[in-house]
Amino acid sequence: MKKVGIVMGSASDLPVVKKAIDTLVSLDIPYEVHVYSAHRTPDETSDFSSTAIDRGFGVIIAAAGMAAHLAGVVASRTVLPVIGIPCKSTNLDGLDALLSTVQMPSGIPVATVAVDGATNAALLAAEILALGNKDLADKLIAKRKKDAEAVLSKNAEIEAQFNK
Amino acid sequence: MKKVGIVMGSASDLPVVKKAIDTLVSLDIPYEVHVYSAHRTPDETSDFSSTAIDRGFGVIIAAAGMAAHLAGVVASRTVLPVIGIPCKSTNLDGLDALLSTVQMPSGIPVATVAVDGATNAALLAAEILALGNKDLADKLIAKRKKDAEAVLSKNAEIEAQFNK
Amino acid sequence: MKKVGIVMGSASDLPVVKKAIDTLVSLDIPYEVHVYSAHRTPDETSDFSSTAIDRGFGVIIAAAGMAAHLAGVVASRTVLPVIGIPCKSTNLDGLDALLSTVQMPSGIPVATVAVDGATNAALLAAEILALGNKDLADKLIAKRKKDAEAVLSKNAEIEAQFNK
Amino acid sequence: MKKVGIVMGSASDLPVVKKAIDTLVSLDIPYEVHVYSAHRTPDETSDFSSTAIDRGFGVIIAAAGMAAHLAGVVASRTVLPVIGIPCKSTNLDGLDALLSTVQMPSGIPVATVAVDGATNAALLAAEILALGNKDLADKLIAKRKKDAEAVLSKNAEIEAQFNK
Amino acid sequence: MKKVGIVMGSASDLPVVKKAIDTLVSLDIPYEVHVYSAHRTPDETSDFSSTAIDRGFGVIIAAAGMAAHLAGVVASRTVLPVIGIPCKSTNLDGLDALLSTVQMPSGIPVATVAVDGATNAALLAAEILALGNKDLADKLIAKRKKDAEAVLSKNAEIEAQFNK
Amino acid sequence: MKKVGIVMGSASDLPVVKKAIDTLVSLDIPYEVHVYSAHRTPDETSDFSSTAIDRGFGVIIAAAGMAAHLAGVVASRTVLPVIGIPCKSTNLDGLDALLSTVQMPSGIPVATVAVDGATNAALLAAEILALGNKDLADKLIAKRKKDAEAVLSKNAEIEAQFNK
Amino acid sequence: MKKVGIVMGSASDLPVVKKAIDTLVSLDIPYEVHVYSAHRTPDETSDFSSTAIDRGFGVIIAAAGMAAHLAGVVASRTVLPVIGIPCKSTNLDGLDALLSTVQMPSGIPVATVAVDGATNAALLAAEILALGNKDLADKLIAKRKKDAEAVLSKNAEIEAQFNK
Amino acid sequence: MKKVGIVMGSASDLPVVKKAIDTLVSLDIPYEVHVYSAHRTPDETSDFSSTAIDRGFGVIIAAAGMAAHLAGVVASRTVLPVIGIPCKSTNLDGLDALLSTVQMPSGIPVATVAVDGATNAALLAAEILALGNKDLADKLIAKRKKDAEAVLSKNAEIEAQFNK
Repeated sequence: MKKVGIVMGSASDLPVVKKAIDTLVSLDIPYEVHVYSAHRTPDETSDFSSTAIDRGFGVIIAAAGMAAHLAGVVASRTVLPVIGIPCKSTNLDGLDALLSTVQMPSGIPVATVAVDGATNAALLAAEILALGNKDLADKLIAKRKKDAEAVLSKNAEIEAQFNK
Repeated sequence: MKKVGIVMGSASDLPVVKKAIDTLVSLDIPYEVHVYSAHRTPDETSDFSSTAIDRGFGVIIAAAGMAAHLAGVVASRTVLPVIGIPCKSTNLDGLDALLSTVQMPSGIPVATVAVDGATNAALLAAEILALGNKDLADKLIAKRKKDAEAVLSKNAEIEAQFNK
Repeated sequence: MKKVGIVMGSASDLPVVKKAIDTLVSLDIPYEVHVYSAHRTPDETSDFSSTAIDRGFGVIIAAAGMAAHLAGVVASRTVLPVIGIPCKSTNLDGLDALLSTVQMPSGIPVATVAVDGATNAALLAAEILALGNKDLADKLIAKRKKDAEAVLSKNAEIEAQFNK
Repeated sequence: MKKVGIVMGSASDLPVVKKAIDTLVSLDIPYEVHVYSAHRTPDETSDFSSTAIDRGFGVIIAAAGMAAHLAGVVASRTVLPVIGIPCKSTNLDGLDALLSTVQMPSGIPVATVAVDGATNAALLAAEILALGNKDLADKLIAKRKKDAEAVLSKNAEIEAQFNK
Repeated sequence: MKKVGIVMGSASDLPVVKKAIDTLVSLDIPYEVHVYSAHRTPDETSDFSSTAIDRGFGVIIAAAGMAAHLAGVVASRTVLPVIGIPCKSTNLDGLDALLSTVQMPSGIPVATVAVDGATNAALLAAEILALGNKDLADKLIAKRKKDAEAVLSKNAEIEAQFNK
Repeated sequence: MKKVGIVMGSASDLPVVKKAIDTLVSLDIPYEVHVYSAHRTPDETSDFSSTAIDRGFGVIIAAAGMAAHLAGVVASRTVLPVIGIPCKSTNLDGLDALLSTVQMPSGIPVATVAVDGATNAALLAAEILALGNKDLADKLIAKRKKDAEAVLSKNAEIEAQFNK
Repeated sequence: MKKVGIVMGSASDLPVVKKAIDTLVSLDIPYEVHVYSAHRTPDETSDFSSTAIDRGFGVIIAAAGMAAHLAGVVASRTVLPVIGIPCKSTNLDGLDALLSTVQMPSGIPVATVAVDGATNAALLAAEILALGNKDLADKLIAKRKKDAEAVLSKNAEIEAQFNK
Repeated sequence: MKKVGIVMGSASDLPVVKKAIDTLVSLDIPYEVHVYSAHRTPDETSDFSSTAIDRGFGVIIAAAGMAAHLAGVVASRTVLPVIGIPCKSTNLDGLDALLSTVQMPSGIPVATVAVDGATNAALLAAEILALGNKDLADKLIAKRKKDAEAVLSKNAEIEAQFNK
């Protein structure tokens, strides 16, 4: 299976990004994690992105906050699908990162998930890789079932507590 | 190659969606277009989504405005990657559709593109399908080159006009 | 009297929803509480909604956060009045849930209350049921009086403290 | 059947409100239309609201723009269900009217629909009145079917045009 | 001198309103404080406002949160200048109260100050009353000087700390 | 009677400001109009503001767009009541001017009206001047009555058209 | 004198950028204009930026819309002052470009001007270059005087029209 | 080398401004810090700004919150480059200060950095002064390298922790 590349713009994004890593691990999807800043290490970011296809990556997840350019910069250097996680910073409640990530101009798409939505970024990467991988698709379907059962079990608890 | 399914919540979204169709056509990617409303035709939307894998779809693009639930509803019924296009309506400048599409809760990802960003939705679908298709990947790389050349040609024009 | 159905998208919404339950209890209105997720348990959500009329429900209250589709999904499956409570999540201050709940397209209304406005959701349900129930209407009028008296009693306190 | 009261804050809201009137007419629901301003005719607004129950109203729809207080003022004078339509004005894209209508404090609910969402306001009123009126409920179910068929017929057209 | 009437929509607004009271006290301006809710005690609010001129009020300050209608309701019942303080609530960061207070339609003005800007509300009331009161005007000028000196004294401290 | 000073930041604000002038004229309130820019003519703006009391002004209305500093700059130079009109510019729908005008720090109040709310700015000025002028107060009360009658006359028209 | 580099992300930004060019021309400041897209021509953008100091540039102005990364990308490659012009696109009223340009993370500043504020971008560039150029500083002071006179001349016109 | 003037509107902005001071110190750039309020000490603010060129300043940094007029007021009195830091206050998450600082009208530019972006304000000042100072330019280039190395060292840590 192709690897998922996870890039975060700053090590301070790790608590958010960790949820993506955990999700990939739970699905046995190979991954690599990196800290590359679109602005502070533009060369490393470019090199990573331009060579990603050849080094066996299938999807790249990029997490950044504020004027979050990372996903767009990565996407400008590869035709791999790039998933952007807008990270909330101290101010403006994540709206800056969301708009900086999702409002990409025509030609260079970024698949944007919710503010701090790292779990969904990993699941989206998994769905993409599952297109050519029946096994992974089955794991995703199983996870959906498990998630549904968790909801229904909570439902049973709350029904028992409130409905007489 | 797997097909791209394009669903719009209302026929009035066609002018936006048309850019996605044109992009897929230009890349020779097979597609199907449908009008299904998450709210007005929930059964048809569910059926389409639940059976999409078996009917040969690889990616689904869902376009809707206002409280844009369509992409989320489709995504809740399939583990295929689902791309959401938030469409601008008369009021609130597309912010309602953007937040309704991108802020999906954990478990059910939607790959969101810019407000009315239909071209990028199609390109993202193409990037996903290109993972298992060297030919399509090459077309995307060629398109990137062509886009770059178009920018540089405009640059030459403007340089000629202003720089002496 | 017809029952009020309360559905929350996640058990984590219970602290908000609890205010609706308490209000219904205080008015002796029968109710049922459920946890159904529009995205994680779409079938259960649909089944609950489609059969709600036949099972004696008169109003449904749906509470959800982020891209809050729950109320809309319920409303798409029943002609019962559906009341939506947009719940505030970690980011974006509830604006995402508010717009996702209130900006419903023509044909499928959702009666939206304030962000986290669970008490008012229950009162609105009560007002609806009171149309055919003089007793309940009287209780609502009595509650209004009591609320007014509470304001006036606070007023008396503050007048005593500040006005000489 | 009880009547629906429609109040608009200014005659300039009529183009929006007209969609509510047309919807009620199409469902044979009796109604009355009035222009009362929360701020310019506070007495008439209060009188209308306080006597609405006795004069046979079952639901009140209130439409207003800007700092849209009308629905809240009406709701403060009656325990009838009050539906608020936030109307878009020249500036701020309707966000002012939306927040002024939906963010009601605990005790006095307003059932808010989308910005300029007059059709849904009427349908919500109909759903409320249909609780005690099987005939009206059937009309609403029939309207849902017709709406669904309209979507599917558009779908057929677009499928024919694009899918080969 | 005419009195300043201070009305708050809920006793929970007192911490904000207290700054207005303190400012009026520091300027020896007579005042009265009340808790009247536009929605829960509409009659008392109306009565207070309609009789305010006759009872010797010169300015009314109204503080409220969420869909803050209080200032507008007061203003609709008197031609006294009405000053609105939009109070921040739990959600939406005060934007709801700000827009509900400031976006008044033509005919009924509300003089709006900043979110939670109670000190300025009192100063504005003082400026209005000072039009016919040289003594109060002098106090305001003196307060401006004192405020300026406070800034300059802080400036001296910080200059001493940082500038060498 | 004291004069109302009207200052606009740019002659392009005249179409908005004209409504304030017309309202003052209709109430026989003396006024002066000026174009002074807080940024382009800071000296003239300061001079006008510092000498306003001595030159017989009672209230100043300041209209400006974008980062609308004019009202604040005027207010910083006088203890006269200053009314700010935030003017909508090409972008951001007036939100920039609104926040720049209303969010004044403690000490220097600006009485802010709605975006482009020039009529209300003039009425607020009139209400302030009417505190010491029974005649003007009566005119304002008469205007309120006339406005109410206009609403009721529209109401009669619409009642005649729709209610049978 | 050092040159000003003007880069726009798309030739469609020219109508906005033209105001910057005209301003530079009017001040006899040498400049070069280019169309380079951060996303479509990342190499040309990088090359231009990295070599800008050596090729005699003193300031760079970058104009882009939507998820406007251009100014940030340029700034990441040079220690020249970079001025960002957020350009308004079809949706979201320029807020996306503004936040994407101004909310730069620590280490890589972008001097941001107003949405579509191209004239000010050029004036800011001129102010920077004027630090080492008394002649240019004098021109800027002269321009300020001329701007002030234009305001005062408009003032005279409007005073003549309205003040009697 | 010319000095950097740092002005803050209130001593409470010092925690933010301190980051700018530290950055200037680390680059051996001479500076002066002042507390001047645009509104409470308009004369001192004007005097400081009008004489700044003659007293050896090369750039001015102005930090203020809420309706942040300080940078604009300073800029209106000098043709030196003025850098604005919008400071977040208790409410509205800094959006008020950002729009009040950045949306300057044509003629008077303010170079705006991110909300609370004091470090970048200092770096921008340094970049401006470095135009005529090879030594400072080298320090900035060295700082960029150090920042990049810090990112890469974090990258190495995280790679070691996660990538096997």
